[in-house]
Amino acid sequence: MRQIGLREVEDIALGAALLGAGGGGDPYVGKLVAMGAIKECGTVTLLDPEEIPDDALIVPIAMMGAPTILGEKGIGGSEYKTLYDMIKQFYGKDIYAFMPIEAGGVNSMLPIAASARLGIPMVDADGMGRAFPELQMVTFTIGGMKATPMALTDEKGNCAIFDTITNKWTEELARAVTMSCGGSVSVSLYCMNGADLKKYAVKNIVTRSQKLGEAIRKVKDYTEGTPEDNFLKFTEGYKLFKAKISDVLRETRGAFNVGKVLLEGIGDCKGKSGYVEFQNENLVAVVEDEILATTPDLICLVDTETFYPITTDALKYGKRVLVVGLKCFDMWRTKEGLELVGPKYFGCDTDYIPLEERVKGGQASCIN
Amino acid sequence: MRQIGLREVEDIALGAALLGAGGGGDPYVGKLVAMGAIKECGTVTLLDPEEIPDDALIVPIAMMGAPTILGEKGIGGSEYKTLYDMIKQFYGKDIYAFMPIEAGGVNSMLPIAASARLGIPMVDADGMGRAFPELQMVTFTIGGMKATPMALTDEKGNCAIFDTITNKWTEELARAVTMSCGGSVSVSLYCMNGADLKKYAVKNIVTRSQKLGEAIRKVKDYTEGTPEDNFLKFTEGYKLFKAKISDVLRETRGAFNVGKVLLEGIGDCKGKSGYVEFQNENLVAVVEDEILATTPDLICLVDTETFYPITTDALKYGKRVLVVGLKCFDMWRTKEGLELVGPKYFGCDTDYIPLEERVKGGQASCIN
Repeated sequence: MRQIGLREVEDIALGAALLGAGGGGDPYVGKLVAMGAIKECGTVTLLDPEEIPDDALIVPIAMMGAPTILGEKGIGGSEYKTLYDMIKQFYGKDIYAFMPIEAGGVNSMLPIAASARLGIPMVDADGMGRAFPELQMVTFTIGGMKATPMALTDEKGNCAIFDTITNKWTEELARAVTMSCGGSVSVSLYCMNGADLKKYAVKNIVTRSQKLGEAIRKVKDYTEGTPEDNFLKFTEGYKLFKAKISDVLRETRGAFNVGKVLLEGIGDCKGKSGYVEFQNENLVAVVEDEILATTPDLICLVDTETFYPITTDALKYGKRVLVVGLKCFDMWRTKEGLELVGPKYFGCDTDYIPLEERVKGGQASCIN
Repeated sequence: MRQIGLREVEDIALGAALLGAGGGGDPYVGKLVAMGAIKECGTVTLLDPEEIPDDALIVPIAMMGAPTILGEKGIGGSEYKTLYDMIKQFYGKDIYAFMPIEAGGVNSMLPIAASARLGIPMVDADGMGRAFPELQMVTFTIGGMKATPMALTDEKGNCAIFDTITNKWTEELARAVTMSCGGSVSVSLYCMNGADLKKYAVKNIVTRSQKLGEAIRKVKDYTEGTPEDNFLKFTEGYKLFKAKISDVLRETRGAFNVGKVLLEGIGDCKGKSGYVEFQNENLVAVVEDEILATTPDLICLVDTETFYPITTDALKYGKRVLVVGLKCFDMWRTKEGLELVGPKYFGCDTDYIPLEERVKGGQASCIN
């Protein structure tokens, strides 16, 4: 158990944006929401999963929809209370703690804001250990857990509770309502007891986000090694490419930001070309026609100077980026995990090969 | 209090289809559902609104979406129990009786099926006294009542409960989910207590449907007058036109069946031409460029031989039809009523003038 204050929020937002793997929203917007709540209502108690009683009701809080829309539409402030009341009425039981459902600039922050405003703790765990675009893509689905009852509310006060036969149906119906509500809503789903939490959640992800954020912030403070070396060491990242963005092909399909960023090698990668495809999050990284990493491993683009993560909606011509691969949570590499979030689900015609093996056998000479 | 059995269902379906004013679905499909339930579970107790205690929980049952889809997709059978359980959980209270929300070939029948299957009574009242295409178009909206909590379920078992800031938002969100569920779902909305029911409902509409159905069935049994005269007398209908359908222009817009049926006069209307525009239900009837009736008055097309109502999705080239106007429920003629369902809401550029006045001043010579 420890307290999350303003300093912690800064680092968590930054590290979670890296784990967002291109998705998860703008950490600037996310941290404003969390910091606003902490300034008004005080710090948040972060609980280790092992501290949670087996029968406690744990409720994830997230936004659903396009994070870019959130930046325009905002959050009303009463959404968390509304979600709390809906879930409490459904279960006839108080909520013990909130938790994030994914790591990302926005969705790592909203549970902090909710916990601060309602004065209940938050759990140091989530259901992805990164960001993914669809709501059935959580470790809890592998554990056979249901997304529903799922509570949804918009900033105007419209509410819905879903109870569906599969988590894919939850995605389908909640997505339709999200679009009707203007493209972004606040949700609670995968409500669970403490026992299931301990079994299936990605543990200590908030702490990991915070450490990653701290590392990025301090990457130039060390006297040994280049900032790039330090960044790769602290994040345990694999350098996939270093490049200038030469074009961004993008379209909004369904409620998703889908596209491809074209890359021209710079520095030690000069002369080579590559690209990264994305659906909200980065899906596959290719250099010189060779696949170097695919979902569910994390493909992160960071600024070559600041090492700040760049989300897919912020990709722009001319930006210099380091493309980094991070190993995903173990459960994603199982057969069940890959069915949910492997390359084939996203329409990439390749089998999943773990990042570290792809990189080891890689011919792309710019890889250290 | 009286019992509704198979004979009553036949007549109610037929009369309700007339009150459907072109919408409300195919009475054949509707009556199969109701008769199946009665055969299996026995007759249904129909309660007069005045018999309902003020604090009793009364719950409308209906299908939402395109009735044509219902004919293909069917109803699973467990929907009513699911809706019952959702509403009961929400209110923490048993449901006293079901009721229809609108008059129509399908939606007058489903509450009968639900009542039969769950063994609870049905109230002789609804919220329209006819059919309308959108769910805020009920007398209860005039009474300031909320559509929500609204429970929705599809035949697969997916469920949602909505709680919205306005009834227009209920329509918006529920319509989106209806589309995602394949275009037709079962719903409960405008749950109310007995006191509000007695204040705002269209009373004795089931009995009226039954009488209309009986009249249509017996229209040729009388020795005095022509069948057409008898039909108009029994239904208190205004003859607007008698014609052959010369064309049907139709498109599916949103989840609606929108279009225009072109008419060439026959018999005493020979030499004249006209048309009827519709959005699920018939909206406006025009003969020789003169508007003879508009929503919310009922514009009904019936077969010139059988006097069976023809729904807008069954309109076909060559059919001989009698176009009949019926006065709508008084509450629809108030300012509040016309805002909800008047011609302007549907994009018809005319003020509302009551049917009987339009017909009185009408120049269209085929009107008696």
